Amino acid sequence: MADTLLDRRDLAFQLYEVLDTESLNERERFSDHSRETFDAVFDTAERIAREQFASHNSLADREEPRFEDGKVTMRPEVKTAVDAYAGAGFIAGRYDYDLGGMQLPETVMTACNGFFMAANPSTAGYPFLTTAAANVIRTFGSREQQDWFLQPMLEGRFTGTMALTEPQAGSSLADLRTSAKPTDEGHYLIKGAKIYISGGEHELSDNIVNLVLARIHGAPPGVKGISMFIVPKYRLDADGNPGERNGVGLAGLIHKLGYRGTTSTALSFGDDADCHGYLVGEPHQGLKYMFQMMNEARVGVGFGAAAIGYRGYRHSLEYARDRRQGRPPSEKDPTTEPVPIIQHADVRRMLLAQKSWMEGALALCFYGARLMDDSHTHPDEAQRHQARQLLDLLTPVIKAWPSEYGPKANDLAIQVYGGAGYTREYPVEQCWRDNRLNPIHEGTNGIQAMDLLGRKVWQGNGEAIQQLFGAIQADLQKAPDEQCRQWAYSLSETLQQAGKVTQSLGQALAQEAPEKGLANASVYLRLFGHICVAWMWLRQANAASAALAGEVSAADEAFYRGKLQAAQYFFHWELPTVAQDLVLLQNQDDTCYAMRDEWF
Amino acid sequence: MADTLLDRRDLAFQLYEVLDTESLNERERFSDHSRETFDAVFDTAERIAREQFASHNSLADREEPRFEDGKVTMRPEVKTAVDAYAGAGFIAGRYDYDLGGMQLPETVMTACNGFFMAANPSTAGYPFLTTAAANVIRTFGSREQQDWFLQPMLEGRFTGTMALTEPQAGSSLADLRTSAKPTDEGHYLIKGAKIYISGGEHELSDNIVNLVLARIHGAPPGVKGISMFIVPKYRLDADGNPGERNGVGLAGLIHKLGYRGTTSTALSFGDDADCHGYLVGEPHQGLKYMFQMMNEARVGVGFGAAAIGYRGYRHSLEYARDRRQGRPPSEKDPTTEPVPIIQHADVRRMLLAQKSWMEGALALCFYGARLMDDSHTHPDEAQRHQARQLLDLLTPVIKAWPSEYGPKANDLAIQVYGGAGYTREYPVEQCWRDNRLNPIHEGTNGIQAMDLLGRKVWQGNGEAIQQLFGAIQADLQKAPDEQCRQWAYSLSETLQQAGKVTQSLGQALAQEAPEKGLANASVYLRLFGHICVAWMWLRQANAASAALAGEVSAADEAFYRGKLQAAQYFFHWELPTVAQDLVLLQNQDDTCYAMRDEWF
Repeated sequence: MADTLLDRRDLAFQLYEVLDTESLNERERFSDHSRETFDAVFDTAERIAREQFASHNSLADREEPRFEDGKVTMRPEVKTAVDAYAGAGFIAGRYDYDLGGMQLPETVMTACNGFFMAANPSTAGYPFLTTAAANVIRTFGSREQQDWFLQPMLEGRFTGTMALTEPQAGSSLADLRTSAKPTDEGHYLIKGAKIYISGGEHELSDNIVNLVLARIHGAPPGVKGISMFIVPKYRLDADGNPGERNGVGLAGLIHKLGYRGTTSTALSFGDDADCHGYLVGEPHQGLKYMFQMMNEARVGVGFGAAAIGYRGYRHSLEYARDRRQGRPPSEKDPTTEPVPIIQHADVRRMLLAQKSWMEGALALCFYGARLMDDSHTHPDEAQRHQARQLLDLLTPVIKAWPSEYGPKANDLAIQVYGGAGYTREYPVEQCWRDNRLNPIHEGTNGIQAMDLLGRKVWQGNGEAIQQLFGAIQADLQKAPDEQCRQWAYSLSETLQQAGKVTQSLGQALAQEAPEKGLANASVYLRLFGHICVAWMWLRQANAASAALAGEVSAADEAFYRGKLQAAQYFFHWELPTVAQDLVLLQNQDDTCYAMRDEWF
Repeated sequence: MADTLLDRRDLAFQLYEVLDTESLNERERFSDHSRETFDAVFDTAERIAREQFASHNSLADREEPRFEDGKVTMRPEVKTAVDAYAGAGFIAGRYDYDLGGMQLPETVMTACNGFFMAANPSTAGYPFLTTAAANVIRTFGSREQQDWFLQPMLEGRFTGTMALTEPQAGSSLADLRTSAKPTDEGHYLIKGAKIYISGGEHELSDNIVNLVLARIHGAPPGVKGISMFIVPKYRLDADGNPGERNGVGLAGLIHKLGYRGTTSTALSFGDDADCHGYLVGEPHQGLKYMFQMMNEARVGVGFGAAAIGYRGYRHSLEYARDRRQGRPPSEKDPTTEPVPIIQHADVRRMLLAQKSWMEGALALCFYGARLMDDSHTHPDEAQRHQARQLLDLLTPVIKAWPSEYGPKANDLAIQVYGGAGYTREYPVEQCWRDNRLNPIHEGTNGIQAMDLLGRKVWQGNGEAIQQLFGAIQADLQKAPDEQCRQWAYSLSETLQQAGKVTQSLGQALAQEAPEKGLANASVYLRLFGHICVAWMWLRQANAASAALAGEVSAADEAFYRGKLQAAQYFFHWELPTVAQDLVLLQNQDDTCYAMRDEWF
């Protein structure tokens, strides 16, 4: 079981029974596809993920990349795996046939990537970053840039990075200092330093294409003066092949708690040699371009957190079924055989919490992926617009909720193992360490909270949030039986209260300093996230209940019963905890806001 | 600031303003002592902890002990530190003058040990384990065993271990298989295997005194047939010096997620050579003896978790004051200077949560230490009995609550640092890894929950819980002003509901299978813990409010205001979350109980 990474039965449920992914095939872009072709893609992804990625997940953690003799060296299995991923066409999976792509829906590509994230998030990082950078060049790069950089990236010959963060600025993009000086030859001279650049140096590809945020000389201060540049490790010769070394230097490797297989680098630009950069799109529009990449990356972070969380759950489930220890409290005879620990209610609690959190998180991410598909390919323009708006609104939630609960799930996985879970001989401690990055990178969850309450909720005059409420309402109506209707009722009540709280927060933000109104943004994000995941559970419960009303195999019956029990866990054990969030928000509790530095 | 480990101002507040530790000096045993001698002891502890322990905390994590050429080698700094601890008399700190001790109260020794736990929990583990084992020999060992083993342990020449867990049994002591065969020469021959034995092998001392649980041939099955043995690494010669090697073998070192400086060993007894063991006390009484040690160890685990949690808080506070990044939401001018991140409300939230959790946890542990003192040295026998009962009741809470919230605090410390916190260049990721052991060892928190709800609450006909409620009531009455009275009211309400829920759980346990009644024991433990920590915050708030009513220095005013704000955090943000626990318990929610293996 530990080799299956994602559960194929659950994947089929999520994609085909809850989301109706097959309906995408009615769209012209996907008309060559069918459930069979999707499943064949999953087979390939699962096989490569298991054979090439999972196999060195622990090894690449123990023997992390090293910087020696001016080169970054790492386990050779990493390159084999990255090449296999590219070779199977996954980097170009979403792209048009004429770019060498497979024209696969986002929903399907997301699910594929789940196998790799679960198998080995560190090694998966390299192609995923490449995909993210490729998407930007595809959307905003010139024709020439696409020919020179995009094509080799899609083929896996070049890899990509996102070079945003600077040591002095951290999350504050307004304070970026890296500069770009125009030259007469068309390129810019880049000068500055970046930090925490994943995949910024390695020997996995012929070239590394850094997408660098920098200020053109004379640009306005703050985020309005940021431009985006393609800054390759090697400049290209006349044939487009990597030639002369560009002035991108490795200042050092950063040693992390987890995700150790992905190099995290401090890069210097233009320190020892001229560093050529090529402007992407228009000057001073870098923030906009960056946000396309960043939004995709945020959804990817949430999904990765869910996949790692889910992987830990599956490991701990397997262990709990296998490991015999102790007896039920009523069994007083110590000569009886010890029972598998899954028979202890508290162990089931820890397993059910993991299942409920992570299958809820996966559902949320798949929902987000479907919104991407709809925003790109829905035949109706109004629907495309709505999907885009809703995705915008949900992006901070999709990033933050799974990345809060993924590490919590991994924490419980360790606890199920007990002492064994604390050793490096079992896989769950690495899951926990790897997953801990997710609440931090691509915008900390505190920043997601500010994005949600400070911006997203009010965008388009609150249209998106109305749309969200409408979408939830539609699923409330679909509850097929009394149990689902009860859960629908709980969700509906919570939704109403959340609506009121949102209104009063809106008034506060209009009247008071934003410092105060946004002080509890994290609480709002938690409330919002819990509502969304409860909604995802209602959708799953509706589907499971409907299926159980018909004839099902014994295996399917157990599967659907498990879905209903996990839904019940969420509605009994999780959703009610937002009562406290609602109170804090209603009262505009100022405990944290009013705390002073000198009182600590 | 990072060098102060515990905050001396807070320590003085907890010990002298909340607990009235000085009143202990009225007892004959402590009559040589005064606040001045206690503070001098703290000075020594703090100095040694800073200079000898904190200085190699990270180093001993990076270069963990290794098993080479039949020997365990580790950083030399560990031995220097352990020797300094023993040399300053701390192992014998609690003991009578005539044993070479200092006759220090438990409260004071606990506080001392906090410096070492905060500085370097792995290295502190060696003398702490020695103390725990020494206490058992002191209480239950024969005069001869005390002469031969206790004395060198108190001097630091011998170290100690607790060898309980076996690979096949884990937490289930009933399933221990290690055997003890009587011989004509007085000793027993021990045969078996133990796992996760901390400090089971090293070169730090002349001898290692393992306290081993084993079954004498013919003993009854289950926990009733367990005896305790002293099993030294080296047998003693006629002069009491380590002589011939005893048949204790190192089967292997276990590599852990954290706490890496403490060797965790798999030991074999009697595999390659005869293994002599010396019976402690009476046959088949091992469980009772073990539980004295275990209860002390559990309180120690809780305190260690609080100390590591607190250390991470202090690091992150220092970082938040130092690190400038971003601007308040209302500051739209990007050319202004970035602010220290402590000015962001969400950072203050994460700091305040850490402060509130960890100072609450520390208060709970100090309260437990005071109960130890009262159970040993209160002049009134009835009071000694009551203190013992209350300590018994609170032990699972003191173990579990800090060990749940300590790692959570460290998690927030990482988040305050952001990307930097995820790197191994900053200390908080190690705190988080080290602290993750605490919910697992000395009885997982699930086992603590069963101990609390399955046993402790009902002991002595519920006398202890009545006593606890009485002690809380007394502090509710002492609220000196309106704010404290409001908090007292909240606590009182929660307490009443908890009382009702306890009654109904008692009825359920009397009527139904214990499997069902105990299924939500972890929820009960959480409720119980939150009530206890809220109580600790009311006590601190009462003291702070009373002090603020008089004349105080500016520094003290800030200190007391911080206490009140942290109390407010607990009463506004934490205590209300038990509403959900109460509902689950009142409904005897069976979501986890009813979940079936095949539904996962």
